[in-house]
Amino acid sequence: MIVAAAADSPVAGALVDLFVVLLAAKLGDELFKRLGQPTIVGEILAGVVIGSSVLGLVEPTETLEVFAELGVVFLLFWVGLETRLSELVEVGRAAILVGLLGFLLPLGGGIGLGFGLGESAATSIFLGAALVATSVGITSAVLIELGVLDTRRARTILGAAVVDDILAMVLLAIAVGLAAEGGIDAMSIAVVVVLAIGFVGFLALGGTRLLRARPRLLSAPRFSESPLLPAVILALGLAALASEIGLAAIIGAFLAGMMVAETKEQHPIEDEIAPLYAFFPPFFFVFIGLQVDLGAFVDAGTFALLAGVTALAVATKFAGSWVGARSLGRADATFVGVGMVPRGEVGIIVAGIGRTTGVIDDELFAVIVGMSILTTLAVPPVLRSLRPSAPEPKPQPQPGQS
Amino acid sequence: MIVAAAADSPVAGALVDLFVVLLAAKLGDELFKRLGQPTIVGEILAGVVIGSSVLGLVEPTETLEVFAELGVVFLLFWVGLETRLSELVEVGRAAILVGLLGFLLPLGGGIGLGFGLGESAATSIFLGAALVATSVGITSAVLIELGVLDTRRARTILGAAVVDDILAMVLLAIAVGLAAEGGIDAMSIAVVVVLAIGFVGFLALGGTRLLRARPRLLSAPRFSESPLLPAVILALGLAALASEIGLAAIIGAFLAGMMVAETKEQHPIEDEIAPLYAFFPPFFFVFIGLQVDLGAFVDAGTFALLAGVTALAVATKFAGSWVGARSLGRADATFVGVGMVPRGEVGIIVAGIGRTTGVIDDELFAVIVGMSILTTLAVPPVLRSLRPSAPEPKPQPQPGQS
Repeated sequence: MIVAAAADSPVAGALVDLFVVLLAAKLGDELFKRLGQPTIVGEILAGVVIGSSVLGLVEPTETLEVFAELGVVFLLFWVGLETRLSELVEVGRAAILVGLLGFLLPLGGGIGLGFGLGESAATSIFLGAALVATSVGITSAVLIELGVLDTRRARTILGAAVVDDILAMVLLAIAVGLAAEGGIDAMSIAVVVVLAIGFVGFLALGGTRLLRARPRLLSAPRFSESPLLPAVILALGLAALASEIGLAAIIGAFLAGMMVAETKEQHPIEDEIAPLYAFFPPFFFVFIGLQVDLGAFVDAGTFALLAGVTALAVATKFAGSWVGARSLGRADATFVGVGMVPRGEVGIIVAGIGRTTGVIDDELFAVIVGMSILTTLAVPPVLRSLRPSAPEPKPQPQPGQS
Repeated sequence: MIVAAAADSPVAGALVDLFVVLLAAKLGDELFKRLGQPTIVGEILAGVVIGSSVLGLVEPTETLEVFAELGVVFLLFWVGLETRLSELVEVGRAAILVGLLGFLLPLGGGIGLGFGLGESAATSIFLGAALVATSVGITSAVLIELGVLDTRRARTILGAAVVDDILAMVLLAIAVGLAAEGGIDAMSIAVVVVLAIGFVGFLALGGTRLLRARPRLLSAPRFSESPLLPAVILALGLAALASEIGLAAIIGAFLAGMMVAETKEQHPIEDEIAPLYAFFPPFFFVFIGLQVDLGAFVDAGTFALLAGVTALAVATKFAGSWVGARSLGRADATFVGVGMVPRGEVGIIVAGIGRTTGVIDDELFAVIVGMSILTTLAVPPVLRSLRPSAPEPKPQPQPGQS
């Protein structure tokens, strides 16, 4: 057509994509609400339906990926807003154990499976790395939907996810070093580890203290209107910084949320963030679904591999996390173990890096993506069913506690 | 670095860009607020400062362009929420005259200048087209900041902008046809015109009636929670559709806002849209600034051309709009005339299409971009100074009027 010059611009196409994704997410959400199922499962499946496997309406473009990333950034910022550092410290020991054991078992399982299948060392380590990292975005969304974010088991999962992410980042650095054939540069890895722990430690301790002591940094008169934009700028800035250091962007967003939560503005900020929290996360869930290639699994061998890898991913992560959380009691340990299972976007990202560097082939990539989706789809209904059978004992309010 | 594989991803880069743009916008905004100047001027200049001309921190990427487009989409959606169809119809005759005369004079001036400079017919028509289209986004933001959106003069500008955009679209279709050497296909253009008028007419009349008669379409029980996402989906959908037809996306967003305004949910929707309205528009203003190439104007000839084109653009648009709005009285006509002057992104888009098709060279492109920025920067302070001297007479409230 004659106006094609304007209508075919990338921006016009992006508007159409954003519209289709948001509409699909809303329909999936509403349908699953009526079915009494977790809404994020509906949104992920909406992504599968509009993606290349079924309708082929939308491709996973770079713009959609940015919106998906902002989705999980705002999701974890929201979770951070609901989290107090003191509460996280309370569950610190259990969280570290869950993070560590929930890291070691899947890693060992993945590497063992790789060698068992006759893969190279680099491929085996990548497979292990792809099985390691929990997608706390998925579990967080379910915790919010269930209204249990303010419980000991939920905080244990969040703390463990931070530990897990630092370990996974170190592992990924080692794996990339192996794949690049340059060998491992122990010094660089040490620098990365120190940076990462310093980043988390400084922000978690210093940042919250700074904003608690000087809440006006985030409000009038320096910023004369609402604290929304300063808070969003802080979230984006720490997310970008975390990303540059090699951590997941969401760790930065989570810490930003915790920092903002310490200020007096907490409640108005929550009201103002809510619409951004409603707008962006659907892109994250739909984008996960968009990456599924159902066609890859018509091959029986691939399907069998998918089943095996998924079973291994679930069993090792559950067992490691359950043992790590055992001190919290049986019911909490089960909840934590299940909550750590989803791999979501993290496994997909690791597999993608492996494919780019040539150590993960197309079949294994499809299997890892499939495993990530299956663990992500399976967990929300299970978590939901666990909740009523194990009511959380309310701690007595103590005077002087914030 | 060893973790470069993750940190150098396009998504991590986009997070950094979004952070830098939002921070720069906020700083420019705060600075200009303290100086008593319109904040959007501060945001545009912030874009110039972080752009290639000064600091070189951020490039105008495709992702930023999508955020800029969403910025102006949410801006016009907000304006639509504040606009009633009945009020627009009241100023209909003046708005059509303003749109028509404010179209013809700059067009004639631009074509005349092109021929005077010895340019080809296609180049001259493109120059005329680049001088034609008002950027209602800029003026709208100033009207909101001044709190005068609900006045006859503001509604005249909004109505004229719709007329102006339809005419500009037809002209652009003709110009693209000429540039493509295939000649003009009168039938295609007629189809485009009918589609455009049908789109505006149907949505403005039918859409608002539909949602007024059945406001539940946008709320419970079909959509069980807040009406935010349905409203946003409508805005994105109509923006994408307008864009596909060849109209500006913002016309669709404006009509969506007017439709939603007819529903009972209007007030809660405004509260919920406000954070999106705070988050996205800064990207639009900064993006305009990012496109400036100050280096192009060190050449004296280019600078003189810029001065001439800008003077022509201001004089013809002001004169045409002033005559068109004369029936509203002298003060309103002056306000409307000034309010129609900003070319903002629209002139830049037209010039960009001209450059892609080869009829606009790099010098003329830089001049058109410079003219768009200058008209955009000059208008907000003038509109602000016009306001107090001409208080708006409040119409008597009439019973039965919505």
